Amino acid sequence: MSMIPVDQAIERLQSNSRLLVDNETIGLKLCRGRVLASDIVAGIDVPPADNSAMDGYALRLADWQEPADALEISQRITAGTSPGPLKASTAARIFTGAEIPQGADIVIMQENCRGDEKRVWIEKAGKAGANIRPRGQDIRQGATVLKAGHRLRAQDIGLIASLGFDTVKAWRRLKVAIVSTGSELVEPGQAIEPGQIYNSNHYMMDALLSGWGFEVIDLGVTEDDPEVLSEVMTRASKVADVIITSGGVSVGEEDHVKDVVESLGSIDLWRIAIKPGKPFAYGQVHGTPFLGLPGNPVSALVTLLVISRPFLFASQGMRSTDIVPLRQPALFDKPGSTRQEYLRIRSRAEGVELFSQQSSGVLYSTTWGDGMVVQYAGQDIARGDAVDVIPYLLFN
Amino acid sequence: MSMIPVDQAIERLQSNSRLLVDNETIGLKLCRGRVLASDIVAGIDVPPADNSAMDGYALRLADWQEPADALEISQRITAGTSPGPLKASTAARIFTGAEIPQGADIVIMQENCRGDEKRVWIEKAGKAGANIRPRGQDIRQGATVLKAGHRLRAQDIGLIASLGFDTVKAWRRLKVAIVSTGSELVEPGQAIEPGQIYNSNHYMMDALLSGWGFEVIDLGVTEDDPEVLSEVMTRASKVADVIITSGGVSVGEEDHVKDVVESLGSIDLWRIAIKPGKPFAYGQVHGTPFLGLPGNPVSALVTLLVISRPFLFASQGMRSTDIVPLRQPALFDKPGSTRQEYLRIRSRAEGVELFSQQSSGVLYSTTWGDGMVVQYAGQDIARGDAVDVIPYLLFN
Repeated sequence: MSMIPVDQAIERLQSNSRLLVDNETIGLKLCRGRVLASDIVAGIDVPPADNSAMDGYALRLADWQEPADALEISQRITAGTSPGPLKASTAARIFTGAEIPQGADIVIMQENCRGDEKRVWIEKAGKAGANIRPRGQDIRQGATVLKAGHRLRAQDIGLIASLGFDTVKAWRRLKVAIVSTGSELVEPGQAIEPGQIYNSNHYMMDALLSGWGFEVIDLGVTEDDPEVLSEVMTRASKVADVIITSGGVSVGEEDHVKDVVESLGSIDLWRIAIKPGKPFAYGQVHGTPFLGLPGNPVSALVTLLVISRPFLFASQGMRSTDIVPLRQPALFDKPGSTRQEYLRIRSRAEGVELFSQQSSGVLYSTTWGDGMVVQYAGQDIARGDAVDVIPYLLFN
Repeated sequence: MSMIPVDQAIERLQSNSRLLVDNETIGLKLCRGRVLASDIVAGIDVPPADNSAMDGYALRLADWQEPADALEISQRITAGTSPGPLKASTAARIFTGAEIPQGADIVIMQENCRGDEKRVWIEKAGKAGANIRPRGQDIRQGATVLKAGHRLRAQDIGLIASLGFDTVKAWRRLKVAIVSTGSELVEPGQAIEPGQIYNSNHYMMDALLSGWGFEVIDLGVTEDDPEVLSEVMTRASKVADVIITSGGVSVGEEDHVKDVVESLGSIDLWRIAIKPGKPFAYGQVHGTPFLGLPGNPVSALVTLLVISRPFLFASQGMRSTDIVPLRQPALFDKPGSTRQEYLRIRSRAEGVELFSQQSSGVLYSTTWGDGMVVQYAGQDIARGDAVDVIPYLLFN
């Protein structure tokens, strides 16, 4: 059985994904991190009218010849008010954001003027159009500014607000059931017996999935017992859109997840050419998609970030889930292997440092730094080489 | 009045910051994005005992000579159980994660063995220690694994869980009051009149600050009216740890925020050498720190990300708020200016593309792409130059 390259594994999983949620209409204040279910199309020009970029005086440039000329101030235009047309051979006092009166073609910033309540002397003008933000400069009516499938960030929400929309149509949050398996697992806060270890993957998965905006359904830790597992997995398939387990999918006699999922649906063990990250399983339980992560914490983290994330977001309607790595010089040497490795690193101004211990059992390797270097199969890294870096934050 | 370089502005603001919150003990499931108020020190070794990295057989290497030798299977060790010492000249059936019995010094993976219930034949051994994860490999008892002031990510939470802690001591969430000013502002969802524009900064600020884990106290939009402003600012100073406004801090006659804040406390207008980003104000209202952001949406976003973010996180106990930019080749030419510019860009595999319109009024410039290039004062950028890139996600 040959190994599946990482990119193919991501793609294969993605091509198996389908939209698992309905859409709903939600208020602007609740839509951070949500995925748009329909395009945002501008119903207005932004700004809706020419307006002033400065505090100063609006006039018709042709009405001004030289600094000695005084212009009568015929109106005062504050932001939020609607000005009348500019009287010929006069100036209008105007403030930032206020609408340009009809007939004016320039705003002179007040620093270049002297004036009183009634008249203004311009010391230095400029070109027609100066300090005027034209109507529609930001967005033209009818333009599609955000597409269905886009995940909303703060600035997107600002943009939607600027168009006057107070709700958006978004895909419902994906419900993800998490189950940790392993008879050796004890919950934090309890006493530990010889042979036991604390359950850490569960908390890590919960934090990651919640941070992605999914609704986590926590089904806790279950023993490696076929009957218990069967009951939990059936329950998970009824309440969740996707089921994620950690542990229990290797070929050991004590790993019952495989048999149980097989009996309730189907399961494929994937040998992905990824390190850390083995073993990974994909299947379904009574028709509900199932992802089986490795039990090793670093492997669980890497497969969740790299392999599972695109699948989960696609299931919630996100259009593009690709992450573009950035480049930094390596401050280390490391020969390549047959698998695509995700090396735990720390970014500094001069380049990326490697954590000394890249074992999949060592979770501390993922907390020590701020990201991972992707070392492709067969790629030997020498100090000074530009390497592909993915800061953890880019997975958010 | 000379302009303040960006780095100095950040530093000056930071040095004015002080911890504004108490600490509290919270459950592991609530601590994503929270800042640690005390160090996390390991009370145990992780793993707590030598354990098997594989499903296979544990034995004393000296007990095995050649493939023809069969070893009696004297015990079966599953994860979560506590094994007895290994009987001389025997092997123990062992599973991934299970504790290594006293006396064994190697685990042979099952793929290299043939066996039945009673005996096992080893086809290929290895070196002593193979497939054994030693006690304390990840973390040694007494080690400080995370320091006070660290902001918790999913993997940190996993690490804390692996040490058996079910709570952490974290700093309380910072309460940030937001106030938008401007008589021209109308709430999204309502009809707009000539001269008015929709309020967008407010929703953008709310999303950003909530995403950072702060508790946003929304005081809505207020007119540019001194009495109303004074009432709102006083209320803000009573309920919040920090007050943030957008708009109203330029030198115009209609900008009353400055006078009002001055009358209730103090205010400094800063001329920061940043573009977009002017004007920015810092002060206090009845002793509560006050940050005055520009009214232009892109300027508001940039000053919130670049200037205000470090101050806010420091006020909530975060130790290091620096962001290390990454490097990408520029796919554009752009001469430098006297100010440090934050250019809105989009990352592609081959480099970063520039958005055509870099005006501070154009919010669409921030939604079009995925980050900003920092163009330092006087830095001319030519196509192909490696430039400093900050993906928006790094500000999270």
